[in-house]
Amino acid sequence: MSPDSLDVVLVRPSRPANVAAACRAMKNMGLGRLFLVEPPAELAAPEARALAYGAWEVLDAARVSASLRDAVAGATLVAGTSGRPLPSAWTPRQLAEEGTARAGAGRTALVFGPEASGLRNDELALCHVHVHIPSDPAQPSLNLAQAVLVLAYEIRLSALSLAPPHGNVGPERATSADIEAALDDLERALLAIGYLNPDNPGKILAELRGLLARAGPTPRETSLVRGLARQILWAAGGVARQRGADG
Amino acid sequence: MSPDSLDVVLVRPSRPANVAAACRAMKNMGLGRLFLVEPPAELAAPEARALAYGAWEVLDAARVSASLRDAVAGATLVAGTSGRPLPSAWTPRQLAEEGTARAGAGRTALVFGPEASGLRNDELALCHVHVHIPSDPAQPSLNLAQAVLVLAYEIRLSALSLAPPHGNVGPERATSADIEAALDDLERALLAIGYLNPDNPGKILAELRGLLARAGPTPRETSLVRGLARQILWAAGGVARQRGADG
Repeated sequence: MSPDSLDVVLVRPSRPANVAAACRAMKNMGLGRLFLVEPPAELAAPEARALAYGAWEVLDAARVSASLRDAVAGATLVAGTSGRPLPSAWTPRQLAEEGTARAGAGRTALVFGPEASGLRNDELALCHVHVHIPSDPAQPSLNLAQAVLVLAYEIRLSALSLAPPHGNVGPERATSADIEAALDDLERALLAIGYLNPDNPGKILAELRGLLARAGPTPRETSLVRGLARQILWAAGGVARQRGADG
Repeated sequence: MSPDSLDVVLVRPSRPANVAAACRAMKNMGLGRLFLVEPPAELAAPEARALAYGAWEVLDAARVSASLRDAVAGATLVAGTSGRPLPSAWTPRQLAEEGTARAGAGRTALVFGPEASGLRNDELALCHVHVHIPSDPAQPSLNLAQAVLVLAYEIRLSALSLAPPHGNVGPERATSADIEAALDDLERALLAIGYLNPDNPGKILAELRGLLARAGPTPRETSLVRGLARQILWAAGGVARQRGADG
């Protein structure tokens, strides 16, 4: 996984000093692209910038996004960090070593939640893989910039150990925006045929997202899913017409 | 290398906040023994301790030494960090993986110099091996606590990989039979709603199989796909009834 193809996404960071320290950690490990979702207003204060020793350009070039969904729209692999050791979570080393094939030639987003609470469940659900840093259970919670450093360090090491590029970057992968559009279409279709509970469609959608994300679909495959969803909707129209005829 | 056999030695740290953050990083990675050589007097201030969230006992138990020589007297392996990529320097991973043999049954001291200047030459000379974190040449200098974290993290991972297996073999995976049954159900459903060409359903099914196989679905996920197929079939029944009504 090349450091050039990585975006660091900090979601609702509360302490400007942590953002600044994360910028420094990024630059230490050769990363430069930062997205901030709802950053704190005080981030522009001189004290915050002063902590980003020599990494001001990372902070200054950060893009501000209104939502996590927007921030990761262009990524083909969205990796969300979790302080909980979810059974399915990858280690940072797995991400560094296996993420390349999953991301294809596209970009990887490394997503970090707020210091105190971590990512919300709806935000974790937007992530294709979850990453947990194997910290000690007695004090599992890393400082935000420390967590950024560990992931960036593993990715840097993995990139350094790779031989010169072979030009073999695997198949083109669908972006998060492609996948979410397919899931939106599926949601409409599956609601229409009564497969989803309208009160709680999220759980099954999250499972379908997990399945798709693990597969790392190509753009062709997400189009196929969207076509399928349209066809189900059309069939559901038939059901509705039938219900009308029955009534 | 067992975390229990490690001592972290901070030589003339200048900023109390860095020492506190180093304590937190140590505790995150399961390390507890800290030596301080000529620490700053302000280290006992509440502000410094406040930064050592949940790692006060590391700070409180720290031993103060008059010199590096004293601090490392009990170690069988003394590893000194250097910001310069000395040709003989080990990487943190080499230290974690090869250090055990070098340390024997004794203790290993991980030595970190002052934030601004690093270890003096006479201090580096006291170290048995030098360790350099492979940071980016554009901004090679890590924050002190970040450097502590990287070494502690590598040692923790190495120790975890040597630990007996936890029986964690990953999630149960669906068998080929499960996957094929799901694809059979999908084929019927997608034919019923006119999504597949009855003369050549195979191509799209092969693509869906490829997608599923790459994902490595769990039994739960293949059941979910089968439920979805049944619901599409049901919807298709509505279409057929509607067609009958139209005819």
